[in-house]
Amino acid sequence: MSGWKSFWTDQSRQRESKPRSVGINSLIDKGLGYHAFQDLLGIAAEHIDFIKLGFGTAGITPRWLLRAKIELARQHQISLFPGGTFFEVAYRQGDAQAYFQTLLSFGFEWVEISDGSIDLSLRERGQAITLARRLGLNVITEIGKKTEHKAPSIEEFLTIYQHDLAHGATYVTMEGREHGCHVGIYDVHGHVQTNYVQELLTQIDPAKMIWEAPQKKQQTALLELIRSKVNLGNIPANEILAVETLRRGLRSDTFFLWEQK
Amino acid sequence: MSGWKSFWTDQSRQRESKPRSVGINSLIDKGLGYHAFQDLLGIAAEHIDFIKLGFGTAGITPRWLLRAKIELARQHQISLFPGGTFFEVAYRQGDAQAYFQTLLSFGFEWVEISDGSIDLSLRERGQAITLARRLGLNVITEIGKKTEHKAPSIEEFLTIYQHDLAHGATYVTMEGREHGCHVGIYDVHGHVQTNYVQELLTQIDPAKMIWEAPQKKQQTALLELIRSKVNLGNIPANEILAVETLRRGLRSDTFFLWEQK
Amino acid sequence: MSGWKSFWTDQSRQRESKPRSVGINSLIDKGLGYHAFQDLLGIAAEHIDFIKLGFGTAGITPRWLLRAKIELARQHQISLFPGGTFFEVAYRQGDAQAYFQTLLSFGFEWVEISDGSIDLSLRERGQAITLARRLGLNVITEIGKKTEHKAPSIEEFLTIYQHDLAHGATYVTMEGREHGCHVGIYDVHGHVQTNYVQELLTQIDPAKMIWEAPQKKQQTALLELIRSKVNLGNIPANEILAVETLRRGLRSDTFFLWEQK
Repeated sequence: MSGWKSFWTDQSRQRESKPRSVGINSLIDKGLGYHAFQDLLGIAAEHIDFIKLGFGTAGITPRWLLRAKIELARQHQISLFPGGTFFEVAYRQGDAQAYFQTLLSFGFEWVEISDGSIDLSLRERGQAITLARRLGLNVITEIGKKTEHKAPSIEEFLTIYQHDLAHGATYVTMEGREHGCHVGIYDVHGHVQTNYVQELLTQIDPAKMIWEAPQKKQQTALLELIRSKVNLGNIPANEILAVETLRRGLRSDTFFLWEQK
Repeated sequence: MSGWKSFWTDQSRQRESKPRSVGINSLIDKGLGYHAFQDLLGIAAEHIDFIKLGFGTAGITPRWLLRAKIELARQHQISLFPGGTFFEVAYRQGDAQAYFQTLLSFGFEWVEISDGSIDLSLRERGQAITLARRLGLNVITEIGKKTEHKAPSIEEFLTIYQHDLAHGATYVTMEGREHGCHVGIYDVHGHVQTNYVQELLTQIDPAKMIWEAPQKKQQTALLELIRSKVNLGNIPANEILAVETLRRGLRSDTFFLWEQK
Repeated sequence: MSGWKSFWTDQSRQRESKPRSVGINSLIDKGLGYHAFQDLLGIAAEHIDFIKLGFGTAGITPRWLLRAKIELARQHQISLFPGGTFFEVAYRQGDAQAYFQTLLSFGFEWVEISDGSIDLSLRERGQAITLARRLGLNVITEIGKKTEHKAPSIEEFLTIYQHDLAHGATYVTMEGREHGCHVGIYDVHGHVQTNYVQELLTQIDPAKMIWEAPQKKQQTALLELIRSKVNLGNIPANEILAVETLRRGLRSDTFFLWEQK
């Protein structure tokens, strides 16, 4: 930023630096190769906190490349983790423990635990979180069904949210899928159900929530609702600079946001 | 895959390896540079059978790069070929033979023959296929018009399909364009016309067909109809791992597909 | 191109080479890393005249990378410039001069001056253009508001267009944003308002206009209206070969365009 210093005096367009627990950006990577991954970290490492390897792609990525990406990210204080669906595949086969151990052997330090495709009772969910934590993994959980076209009720959400944090999860994620349409807090056109989010905000800690928000209008709406503290997930890898300009008012959509009182 | 072996016991999520004539993935490349092409093969070569250089892009790609991509792909048992539109440009100029010879001089081993923009009689179509075969090229043909908003009738399709195979084509492709909307078997929203596909399936050999399916919902629908044998075309290059997770039930959309009897 | 020479005899599919003032392609880059930028120039440098660093992304790109991209582009006769929104951020802080000087210190030779988010009187606009020119920058201006859903009236447009050129701008840009929907000459579905463009064409010099046209249907429509001289802007970086095939009739959408009289 220092090259722009002479005219870059507006502190509202600055951001706190990593490591941070609010204002985090979590990306979705659907298969970046080695050069592209280097490029991503070269241009945007300071803006990235997490990178999720979407759904089960980790399972079909060559091992050398998986290890290389994990290590390269680690050097930039970025944590990789496989999408929750991969956990669900393992869980359904009765292999959750082997899954967690395999992650550790690759160098992963975080795991996502979800039941977007399978069904988990609260008890099973708690056991999985506890097991992952005991083995040494940090846990992000996700709430929401992939094929239901709405978020759980506020009460239901809060029950799981509190449960997961009590069992040792660091973050809880609101499901938004890769596309952000007709799922969770998004209607069929991808618009945010503002009332739901506002009600939720009265009862949760934004520093514990990650909102999957793959589309610009969703990122913008959540920035307007939650401001700079909002943790955004499922950001497409090639949109990270664009999202970061939204966060800093360097794009039309949020140009005046930080001037509002 | 072996890193995941300890919990990766579900054979239904495995795939037969290359070379294969069913379950093939054919990508569309609209201008990948050298590093990006290396990345693609580095992360996904075992999942890729063909890469089409979309429409006439081959004609404006630097020669050194074209040769390098063909050779790099060949080392991974992947065949490149220019989009059919480029053949149509040459054919319309009366230069089909020079076109085929130029392809060979670059190292291409496959060619696509189509009449999506021009009109070819069956006789002209047969002559072009025969000429390409005689010169030593393998042939993929394509059926469908770029600007008609529906597939040919079943009868019409079958006539051309049988004609092309009889003249030496290895695969016949169902037109889907790059976007997959309002063309061939896709309606204006990109949904598959299931009845048409099901009727066609009673009369064709899936091992001879490639279905252009650029969108996830199309890939999913065709996997549900044709299962693991389906040959998918026009897969966006950056979606190959995502498509492969669909094929293996490593993504929500097909999570339970292979458990159904 | 020479590899295809033997059958590549149709002059209508050729293009004049750089440097050129008509038929230019101006790309939008939202955060290409170093390898990707090398790839882009390696595959398409001869088809690219300008690359805009979208909105304020220049301000959060590492300095070494910004300098490297500017220099690499310069070697290929391609000019980089930051999006107009970044100018507007600086202007609103009262730092236009420092902004221009910082651009020069990085090696930028062009600047975009716009008022898509802020309001500038004609006089302020003229002063900014004059200042940039006096400091040694070439100027591209942009006409249109980011959040208005239509173009200015023909009269209003022409007033600003003539004003900007008279004050030393080299090109005037019609706003289309990154998405090309419900803005400027595009309706909510991204279709071109043909009447407006045709009326404008009777009173402007196409060699002085850049039309932001991020979508294929927009590029195609403008090629049909303005033919090979049209200057296209906001072309997504990964679409440059696709756009160039449109320009040369190497894609179905414009296959017959150059045969029409």
